[in-house]
Amino acid sequence: MKSQRAELVAEAAITLLAERGMRGLTHRAVDEEAGLPPGSTSNLARTRLKLLELALERLTELEGAAFESALGVPGPITQDSLAEMTTRALWAQLTTDRRRTVARYELALEATRRPELRRVYDEAGARFRDPAVQILAAVGSPDPVRHGRQMVAFGEGVMFDAIAGAGTEPTLDDLRLGVRELLRGMLR
Amino acid sequence: MKSQRAELVAEAAITLLAERGMRGLTHRAVDEEAGLPPGSTSNLARTRLKLLELALERLTELEGAAFESALGVPGPITQDSLAEMTTRALWAQLTTDRRRTVARYELALEATRRPELRRVYDEAGARFRDPAVQILAAVGSPDPVRHGRQMVAFGEGVMFDAIAGAGTEPTLDDLRLGVRELLRGMLR
Repeated sequence: MKSQRAELVAEAAITLLAERGMRGLTHRAVDEEAGLPPGSTSNLARTRLKLLELALERLTELEGAAFESALGVPGPITQDSLAEMTTRALWAQLTTDRRRTVARYELALEATRRPELRRVYDEAGARFRDPAVQILAAVGSPDPVRHGRQMVAFGEGVMFDAIAGAGTEPTLDDLRLGVRELLRGMLR
Repeated sequence: MKSQRAELVAEAAITLLAERGMRGLTHRAVDEEAGLPPGSTSNLARTRLKLLELALERLTELEGAAFESALGVPGPITQDSLAEMTTRALWAQLTTDRRRTVARYELALEATRRPELRRVYDEAGARFRDPAVQILAAVGSPDPVRHGRQMVAFGEGVMFDAIAGAGTEPTLDDLRLGVRELLRGMLR
């Protein structure tokens, strides 16, 4: 983030999005949540769109760092190590990063009706989607572009189901078995 | 729905949820969208929770009918026919039922912060999840409960990715290949 204050404001916006949804996100509520004087959020992000972009920028920064650390397994990538890193990354999203995941889904839905936010969301998404395609190619996928997208969609579905769809969470073993099955079906 | 007016109000609420999100859903906006006199929506659904439940009830009715028609393929279910009916059901959600799908995702996220809505959402979900488990058992899954959930999560992910995550839609062939791969990985 550009400044410590921008980070504070972005984190408060993410918390509000997760806890209260789009309706609970206002410049004033962010000031309060961040413990900043009234008007601070407006000074940083004048419009609602700017505030949404700031929150999304922060999420991309955090999820990008988590993603890169999950990819940082030593040695060449195999189908097994890809399954393991994918499982770990999903598990982290479901446990430590739950608040962020809910906030990101709020922003994804909002992006369906705000073309400017769509553009920012898609640019951020490419940071995860492009490496997914490269990794699938590296483990021998015959159709890496489609398979990369499919892995991302599978991960989104598992997370959405756990957080918002079914109201209960899969175990780590369930996640691992599921990821292995998807990879086996794609890469046999 | 209990009455024609309830259906009209529910449909207007679904449209507003899809087009404007949770922030755009108010009793007054529903009156306007439905072309009803002011106060009509409040008479039917006094609280915001009741209005959300009414919209969810209507979505469950519509998606349930679509789901049952997708399952209504003649003859015994095989891995191939299951792949085909799943593909067709996802395709229908992505094309004709897109507005409903966005609205349902809005309600799913809202359910993460409203326990009463969570209960209704989960009851509705069981109407889709229980048959998924039975069908997976019928085609020979060694772990039908986990696999049923996985199929639902995969479908949610593919739809979420297409509608809100990637901003572009897969082709019918992409969908079919993906569903076949998932089933092959689970049922090999």
